[in-house]
Amino acid sequence: MQPGQILGVTVQPGQEQAFRAAAAAAYRRGALFVDPFYFDPDVKRSRIEHADPETLDFVPPWYPARLLALAERNDARLAFAGVAVPNALAGLDPALAGRDQLPSLKEAGRVISERATNWCALPVPTRPWAELVYPGLDPEAAYERLWRDVWHILRLDEPDPAAAWDARSQELKRHATALDERRFDAIELRGEGTDLTVGLLPTSRWNGGAFETRSGVEHFPNLPTEEVFTSPDPLRADGHVTSTKPLVLRDGTILRGLRVRFEGGRAVEVDADENGAALRARLEVDDGATRLGELALVDRRGRVGPLETVFYETLLDENAASHLAFGHAFPFAAGEQEAGRVNESGIHIDFMVGSPELEVTGVTGAGERVPVLRRGDWEI
Amino acid sequence: MQPGQILGVTVQPGQEQAFRAAAAAAYRRGALFVDPFYFDPDVKRSRIEHADPETLDFVPPWYPARLLALAERNDARLAFAGVAVPNALAGLDPALAGRDQLPSLKEAGRVISERATNWCALPVPTRPWAELVYPGLDPEAAYERLWRDVWHILRLDEPDPAAAWDARSQELKRHATALDERRFDAIELRGEGTDLTVGLLPTSRWNGGAFETRSGVEHFPNLPTEEVFTSPDPLRADGHVTSTKPLVLRDGTILRGLRVRFEGGRAVEVDADENGAALRARLEVDDGATRLGELALVDRRGRVGPLETVFYETLLDENAASHLAFGHAFPFAAGEQEAGRVNESGIHIDFMVGSPELEVTGVTGAGERVPVLRRGDWEI
Repeated sequence: MQPGQILGVTVQPGQEQAFRAAAAAAYRRGALFVDPFYFDPDVKRSRIEHADPETLDFVPPWYPARLLALAERNDARLAFAGVAVPNALAGLDPALAGRDQLPSLKEAGRVISERATNWCALPVPTRPWAELVYPGLDPEAAYERLWRDVWHILRLDEPDPAAAWDARSQELKRHATALDERRFDAIELRGEGTDLTVGLLPTSRWNGGAFETRSGVEHFPNLPTEEVFTSPDPLRADGHVTSTKPLVLRDGTILRGLRVRFEGGRAVEVDADENGAALRARLEVDDGATRLGELALVDRRGRVGPLETVFYETLLDENAASHLAFGHAFPFAAGEQEAGRVNESGIHIDFMVGSPELEVTGVTGAGERVPVLRRGDWEI
Repeated sequence: MQPGQILGVTVQPGQEQAFRAAAAAAYRRGALFVDPFYFDPDVKRSRIEHADPETLDFVPPWYPARLLALAERNDARLAFAGVAVPNALAGLDPALAGRDQLPSLKEAGRVISERATNWCALPVPTRPWAELVYPGLDPEAAYERLWRDVWHILRLDEPDPAAAWDARSQELKRHATALDERRFDAIELRGEGTDLTVGLLPTSRWNGGAFETRSGVEHFPNLPTEEVFTSPDPLRADGHVTSTKPLVLRDGTILRGLRVRFEGGRAVEVDADENGAALRARLEVDDGATRLGELALVDRRGRVGPLETVFYETLLDENAASHLAFGHAFPFAAGEQEAGRVNESGIHIDFMVGSPELEVTGVTGAGERVPVLRRGDWEI
């Protein structure tokens, strides 16, 4: 937070106390205003159940106007992640549900790519989420346990959490630099149910840790963040992957056992043991949705993986394991001159393919194969 | 709710379940979209405590843009009343607190006067509110008791609540018509600590019950509504009044023992046993704030008064007793040709002066004095 900034906060039911704490902290640091954006997945369910299907893509014009105004002013944004309503869209027609993309706004990708706002998505426990993660505990114990997990994952149990994140950020940046120096032409992912080669652009850059806005404000776009990631070549992905963690769509739909086959960069087969149709519906929103916008490598030194817990929340689960994402890429991760070649889409959906057994190998333009991750440790 | 309308809902912490219920009902009736406006008085307190005082009148431009867009589209609005944070601004400098008028928007008065939206303010219990109203009960019992009160007050315990409100609306309209036919020049209020004469405009019209928007949609602006009210002459109010109920400002500040002296329509002395300064600060926002925008008569046949409970919520307490309001008047309550003579202000603050003992008397232009309310019963 910088003095004079507006702080926009996405808040879900059950996160009201965290919103109060964040708002008080922001005002103490000189915020001009703290503006909540309240989103309830249960209400989204009502809409899809009852509203005229032809209206489900309607977005009130003041939603993007707010986001673009925050971007124009170089303001700050917080998004409270976490499952407010488990499996909120269960049983609905996925094609209908896919028409309502809220709380995502199509303008968000551009705002992020332009590095207009210092923003952070971070997990805030809710009681229903705790019961989803820990169904065997009584509700109060589950809620306390999830808070303890999140507290640990966010390094809030360190004497100086900010310093701990700065140190981790430096580690991630070192690995990103090492990957950049190799200028790999492709990355191979090999493991159980996975054999995929993802092409990189000549200028693909690896990123990790803290970011800086165009106006020079350092921020962590995600907390936790344990990944080193890049924007791959959207025209080169071949092979198949099997997800190693459940995937929770932003509307609460939980996919298990996702399997995807890629040809020439496109996902040509998308199946899952549960709720594959919900993902397929979201992949139909635009041309770029079936192509890769992100390749992220996660070592075993983060705090999510060792908990060996499925959190049903991408922000946590993706930091447990290496992952890919359908949809929107980060132009800044491909260098200025190639920014136009990275993938474009209105969606960005991460799915986990990593595990300690996953072998990640870099392939140079000359065909040399260089071990990158083995048993979760960096080899370069 | 009409098919195709957006429903804007003002929601406070603790009212999340009611928001879900309202949203589901609206979508079942064909709403295009249900848009929450989340407001937390505790966050407002943080702002006033910590933010730069010079910025406290800042309102994000998308707040009025949203309201004016709803008005332009002739949409529907719900405002969940009720105390989310008791005495939220206790101990703060009232002059500072008065600079932040949110959640009120200065554009709201015009939107209401233009009858652009079908809107309804109605009480939704919260746990902190229940503990404020029933400090002697354990929290769960207090919460259940407040819900039972509100359920009764809203006539939801009637076999057909909508029919019950239609019937009450007809009663109120009959009394309003009788008052209109007398064309009183002034109304006298006489009771313990109160001796005030409020002038009316030649075209002041009395209103009550359901309203109709400019596009012909019938709606209850307030539920409950037990009042018959008009917009008085802002230049003629003389005498003094003592409030008969505590007054809760929208930010949660509770005033007790309010005493006001009027001269030539202006409140020239404003005192209270508790928190008078908070009201005085709000009355400084503009020229019209110290003049009367409303005179409302309440009989003893409503459901709030007989409960003999102080709810610390104007929407309930005002419907227990006859009342006045500082600030913005309703131009539609003064006839087309005199609409420009009613009071204008960015605020509208009701305060209760009624009781069964209050004698309300109409004074005709010829000086005839006609009993209007005696012992809470209509005499005309």
